Amino acid sequence: MSEVSRRGFLVAGGTVAASAALIARGGQAPAQAAAMRRDAEEFDEHSYLAEYTVSFDGAHQAGISTPHQAHLNLVGFDFHAGASREDVQRLLKLWTSDARALCQGETPPGSLEPEMSASPANLTITCGIGPRVFEIIGEKRPGFLDPIPAFELDELEENWGQTDLVLQICGDDPTTVSHATRHMVRSSKTYVSTGWMQQGFLNAHGTSGESPTPRNLFGQLDGSVNPRGVEDFAEQVWIDDGPDWARDSTVMVVRRIRMNLDTWEELDRASRENAVGRRLDDGAPLSGGGEFDDIDLHATDDYGLPVIDRNSHAARAHPPAGHPEQRLLRRSYNYDLPPVPGDQLSNSGLVFICFQKDPHEQFVPIQKRLDERDLLNEWITHIGSAAYWIPPGVGRDRDAYWAQSLLE
Amino acid sequence: MSEVSRRGFLVAGGTVAASAALIARGGQAPAQAAAMRRDAEEFDEHSYLAEYTVSFDGAHQAGISTPHQAHLNLVGFDFHAGASREDVQRLLKLWTSDARALCQGETPPGSLEPEMSASPANLTITCGIGPRVFEIIGEKRPGFLDPIPAFELDELEENWGQTDLVLQICGDDPTTVSHATRHMVRSSKTYVSTGWMQQGFLNAHGTSGESPTPRNLFGQLDGSVNPRGVEDFAEQVWIDDGPDWARDSTVMVVRRIRMNLDTWEELDRASRENAVGRRLDDGAPLSGGGEFDDIDLHATDDYGLPVIDRNSHAARAHPPAGHPEQRLLRRSYNYDLPPVPGDQLSNSGLVFICFQKDPHEQFVPIQKRLDERDLLNEWITHIGSAAYWIPPGVGRDRDAYWAQSLLE
Repeated sequence: MSEVSRRGFLVAGGTVAASAALIARGGQAPAQAAAMRRDAEEFDEHSYLAEYTVSFDGAHQAGISTPHQAHLNLVGFDFHAGASREDVQRLLKLWTSDARALCQGETPPGSLEPEMSASPANLTITCGIGPRVFEIIGEKRPGFLDPIPAFELDELEENWGQTDLVLQICGDDPTTVSHATRHMVRSSKTYVSTGWMQQGFLNAHGTSGESPTPRNLFGQLDGSVNPRGVEDFAEQVWIDDGPDWARDSTVMVVRRIRMNLDTWEELDRASRENAVGRRLDDGAPLSGGGEFDDIDLHATDDYGLPVIDRNSHAARAHPPAGHPEQRLLRRSYNYDLPPVPGDQLSNSGLVFICFQKDPHEQFVPIQKRLDERDLLNEWITHIGSAAYWIPPGVGRDRDAYWAQSLLE
Repeated sequence: MSEVSRRGFLVAGGTVAASAALIARGGQAPAQAAAMRRDAEEFDEHSYLAEYTVSFDGAHQAGISTPHQAHLNLVGFDFHAGASREDVQRLLKLWTSDARALCQGETPPGSLEPEMSASPANLTITCGIGPRVFEIIGEKRPGFLDPIPAFELDELEENWGQTDLVLQICGDDPTTVSHATRHMVRSSKTYVSTGWMQQGFLNAHGTSGESPTPRNLFGQLDGSVNPRGVEDFAEQVWIDDGPDWARDSTVMVVRRIRMNLDTWEELDRASRENAVGRRLDDGAPLSGGGEFDDIDLHATDDYGLPVIDRNSHAARAHPPAGHPEQRLLRRSYNYDLPPVPGDQLSNSGLVFICFQKDPHEQFVPIQKRLDERDLLNEWITHIGSAAYWIPPGVGRDRDAYWAQSLLE
């Protein structure tokens, strides 16, 4: 009986799991594994864990240009009343040290659960700093953290609003992500309490069939126009001017977007594709080519009619002439809450996360156009909004901590 | 820069993802993959999908003896008022056909999202039938579905109680599991509405380090004493007497167990291990041997004191002399809800799921002993309870449907 041989494997196969897993990771994504191995060899002595490890140290924080992992816990935190500049400093030192250990598969100080952090499985922990922290530390708030303006169609819920800090915890093992979240929360309780936790998921192992781009719950490949390569990231994501402390940092905008699957799924496929401006199967623009080819907003069909609807999501999100800066890195995750019993069929959406140099030059003008006219607005509602400065990486200095150059 | 080469991979590597994924699955768990391939060759023409597919057809439903996948959506449903025997029959026919398609990576009728079900990733959908359905169809409720008695320490919440039906949807790709859940819910809305959805997770890929047993959020290997092999399953799980319609069926008990991480983590490791009666690192009984060796309740240390605390979880759960039938299959999943803002540090626990011939001979006497005295009770609370008859598998008949032998 096959069911028994499978269960039999579970016992017999236990001892080969470690070496077999190496093959698995290598087989699944050879170039990715090679890149990770390269990182790991520089910093990490755990050769067994190396294949699963994303380097924590570097010029930029991990979890931004890192290929998306399967799981997200995005946790917003608020400082207790009366927090001081020293508290901010102490917490960020503590968090940096704990995050480095967890992401390398080591046991952070104070943890009695070495088994729960032994398999990082591409764990990344990315720290962001909200506008109020600049008040607490007595520094001028940078312009890129000016409040995101309200948009006409927003239905923001206070539950999902701005917090003082955020941790973006991503990984390919849900138990590891859960434990890392738990550890970061418990180790910071002297200073902060949690405001919200936004849990999300994507296709397992970072792939979805033929395309590396994950699918959202409308079935769309989500993130096809993301930056690719050093130049794109330098242009769109990493801050390279302004004060010294901001160099190599970036800015995260989080929008919680409810998606109405019930009404969306009433559409036929042609209408769905028209609303997005792209094919559902392979993500290619309706104007032709492949997923990563440029969209042609001027393409017409045999009758001279535009192939891409001017109000489609892709057309409205596209940078207008003279504004090549209106691009950014999307790194969103799907969410699925239990439906309200007896009432809802689903309670799903997107934890939209994007990274950029300055939201007021990038996210805000794009979202303004989408808010004004985007066919997708019929089926989506923005219910949460927040923005965070993402300090630079800690380089290769083991004593460095997040936002050190701002705080010292 | 490594971050760019990784992202670069995402583009360049897209076209090799499909074939590489096969290697990954094969490399990760060769025996498991072989068992699945064997199943798949008998029924499934999609050789590409075969490696990812758990056979839907068979004497027993899938998702019971199947090695645990990483993700669970357990959904409880209630029939609309006035449901008839014919409604039950129609729904179960519909669900069987949809589940078979989804688990094989095919597109079920009525779905316009073929891409969302194309990668089953070990998807299983298991159907259970609650006590009230026997009223609806006008049949005598079998004794094994007599209500689970209340236990002294229970703090049951109505939200997590008995429903008319349950679907246990498990898989290794969270997006696939989400879509399968969505499809099963939408396709049944004429007949039922959702009562609750219990989402859960385990270590990714079905392994946790050296042991194949997954860890719960107390850091324990959970399920070490599970049945292994044909004889164990025949003795503990599959019903082989009583009415014909019950042959090869089983009974699921679901308990939602809140786990207080805050107070648990105040313990040192020796106290944690004493409470369980097993080592945290490898799950071996404190009396010695390996994870799968028998626990020795009579072992004493150099001072003549018992090595295994008589009130430890393992000691209390152990079948007493003369009651070898008090064993069952545990197939539980961890849960993690967002903590209540500003108040909780965590909101976590276990969706405890077990399978057996008769809960009143198996789960109930075990749980009665645990409820009376189990050191773990200090840190856990049972907050939900339900039981379901799990009909036999549909054999190899493509027209057969769940519970057909009861309904026709």
